[in-house]
Amino acid sequence: MEKFRGYGIDGNGKEGTAAIVLSGGYEDDYDLGEEIVSTGAGGNNRSTGKQVADQTWSNPGNAGLRISHDRGLPVRVIRGASHKSKYSPESGYTYAGLFSVVDCWEETGKSGFKICRFKLVYCGGNPNRKTAEQLELNYHNDFTKRKSGELLELDYDTREKKRAKGTVLRIVRDTKFANDIKVLYNYQCQVCDTAIPTRSGLYAEGAHIRPLGAPHDDDDNLNNLLCLCPNHHVMFDKGSFAVSEEFTLLGNVSGTLKVHGKHLINKKNLKYHMDTHGYS
Amino acid sequence: MEKFRGYGIDGNGKEGTAAIVLSGGYEDDYDLGEEIVSTGAGGNNRSTGKQVADQTWSNPGNAGLRISHDRGLPVRVIRGASHKSKYSPESGYTYAGLFSVVDCWEETGKSGFKICRFKLVYCGGNPNRKTAEQLELNYHNDFTKRKSGELLELDYDTREKKRAKGTVLRIVRDTKFANDIKVLYNYQCQVCDTAIPTRSGLYAEGAHIRPLGAPHDDDDNLNNLLCLCPNHHVMFDKGSFAVSEEFTLLGNVSGTLKVHGKHLINKKNLKYHMDTHGYS
Repeated sequence: MEKFRGYGIDGNGKEGTAAIVLSGGYEDDYDLGEEIVSTGAGGNNRSTGKQVADQTWSNPGNAGLRISHDRGLPVRVIRGASHKSKYSPESGYTYAGLFSVVDCWEETGKSGFKICRFKLVYCGGNPNRKTAEQLELNYHNDFTKRKSGELLELDYDTREKKRAKGTVLRIVRDTKFANDIKVLYNYQCQVCDTAIPTRSGLYAEGAHIRPLGAPHDDDDNLNNLLCLCPNHHVMFDKGSFAVSEEFTLLGNVSGTLKVHGKHLINKKNLKYHMDTHGYS
Repeated sequence: MEKFRGYGIDGNGKEGTAAIVLSGGYEDDYDLGEEIVSTGAGGNNRSTGKQVADQTWSNPGNAGLRISHDRGLPVRVIRGASHKSKYSPESGYTYAGLFSVVDCWEETGKSGFKICRFKLVYCGGNPNRKTAEQLELNYHNDFTKRKSGELLELDYDTREKKRAKGTVLRIVRDTKFANDIKVLYNYQCQVCDTAIPTRSGLYAEGAHIRPLGAPHDDDDNLNNLLCLCPNHHVMFDKGSFAVSEEFTLLGNVSGTLKVHGKHLINKKNLKYHMDTHGYS
C-alpha cells in the first residue's frame, strides 16, 4: 500500500526525483491520464497501509518531488497494476511518460495526519499513451466497446470540472541546460542579482535568448541562455529590455548585464533578440 | 490575400483582438492544428497581395494581438477555405476555437519589409476539432484513409522538430477576473508596488489565493485573487510567503499587503493558502 517510491537520481532527495511508481491510492487521489494528483510517502503502516503518523517534507521521496517542482525537472511515472485508474495495466507495470510536478502542498488527510500532495501533468515521452479524450472518443463512437456507460459519463463530467479554467498567460519551460545556467549563477538574476527564495532553496528561470522551437528554432545550450528572475524574464521575453553585443542593457532597464567568465553568450542571438523586438 | 482581419472587442485595438480570420498565407507561416504561426496585417497591396511597405504595431490588428499576448486574453480563430492548411474547410469558414497568443515579434520578410508575427496555441473552445495526433493516428491505423502517406510522414517529422523542447516549469493562467484585479490595482504588485513595463503597457499577474481546478477547486472571482508581479506570484504559489487574515506578510517577505477598499479578499482562502504551505 505504499503510495509511491521515489528514486532520486543519486539515491537521495537532493537533485529531484527521477521516477515514481504509482500503486495503491488514497481516497482523494485521481488519475486522468494526463493529470494525476497523488499523495506523498511515509507515515503509513506497511502491513495495514493505514496512515499512523504525519508525512514530512524531509522524507526523501517528498523532498525530491518538491525539488522537481521548484526546478521544473521532469519525473518519470510508472503505473503498477494495483494503482486504481483505468490507465493502469492488468498486471505488472507500464511506463506512463514524463510528467511535470506543477503543484505541491500539504493538507490534513482523512486520517487526521498531515499528508504531502502532488499534482503531475503529462509532458511527453510516451508515444503509446492514450489520452482521456481518445479513450472517451472511442467509447462514445463505438458502442461495442462501451462496457460501463454510466461510469464513463461520470468520469467525463469529473474531468471537465477538475480542469483549471482560463487560458494560458505564460508557459515557462525548463530544459537540460536551463538548470546548468541557474547553478552557474547560483540562481541570481543577471540583471538585478535577485535570487527568489523558496521552501526548498532558490528559484530562477533560464531565459532562452533566441527562443526554442518554431519558428525561431534555436537549440538549448548555455550560450543561448540567461539566468533571470521571473520579472526580468517576462520583460526580456516581451522585449521590455534587450542586451547589446557589449552587454549594455537597453530599453526599460539600465546598466550592464552581469556575465560569468565561463558563460560565452552567443552574440548573434543577442542581436536576433534585439532585432525581433525592434532594438536595431 | 490579406492575412487576417482583427476585430477588436470594441472595434479598436485597445482591448485585445477578439477574433482573427486566417486566409491566404505567407511562406514562413504554418498551421499544425494546435499551433499556428501567422503574419500580421498591413503593408500589402490589396489586389496583388504583395508586400509593398513595412507592417506596423500601430495597425489595429497587430496592436490588438500584441495586447492579447501581454494580457493573456484568448483570441477566437476562424479558418477560411483559402488558408493553406489541412485543417482548413473546403469552402467557407470553420471555427477553430480559442487560442493563446504565446509570442509576438517582428522580423524582415522575404520582401525586405518589416512584418509582425504571432504564435498561437490552442487553448480550448472547440469540442469538434481534430488534433494533429488524432489525424495522424487515424491515418496510420487505417490505410484506407491514407491518401498521401509521404506528405503526412513529412508533416509528422516537421511537427516533432517544431515543438519546443523541455518541460513546463510554470503555467500562468489568465482568467476573466484576473484582468479585473490587474485593472483595479493598475498592474501594481500588492506586495512591492512594482508594475512591469511592456511595449504595450503594463504587466501583472492575477494570483489565485486558493488555486483553480482540481483538487483545490476554487472559483475564479475577485475575492480569491491578488495582483502580483511575477516574482511575488512565484513566491506566493510556492509558499515562500503567505498572507495572514489581518493581511500581515509572513515568511520570506515582511510588511503588510496593500488592499484596495473595493477588494474584499476571502479570508478563508488566505487561511487555506497558509494551511497548504505550513503557516498555521
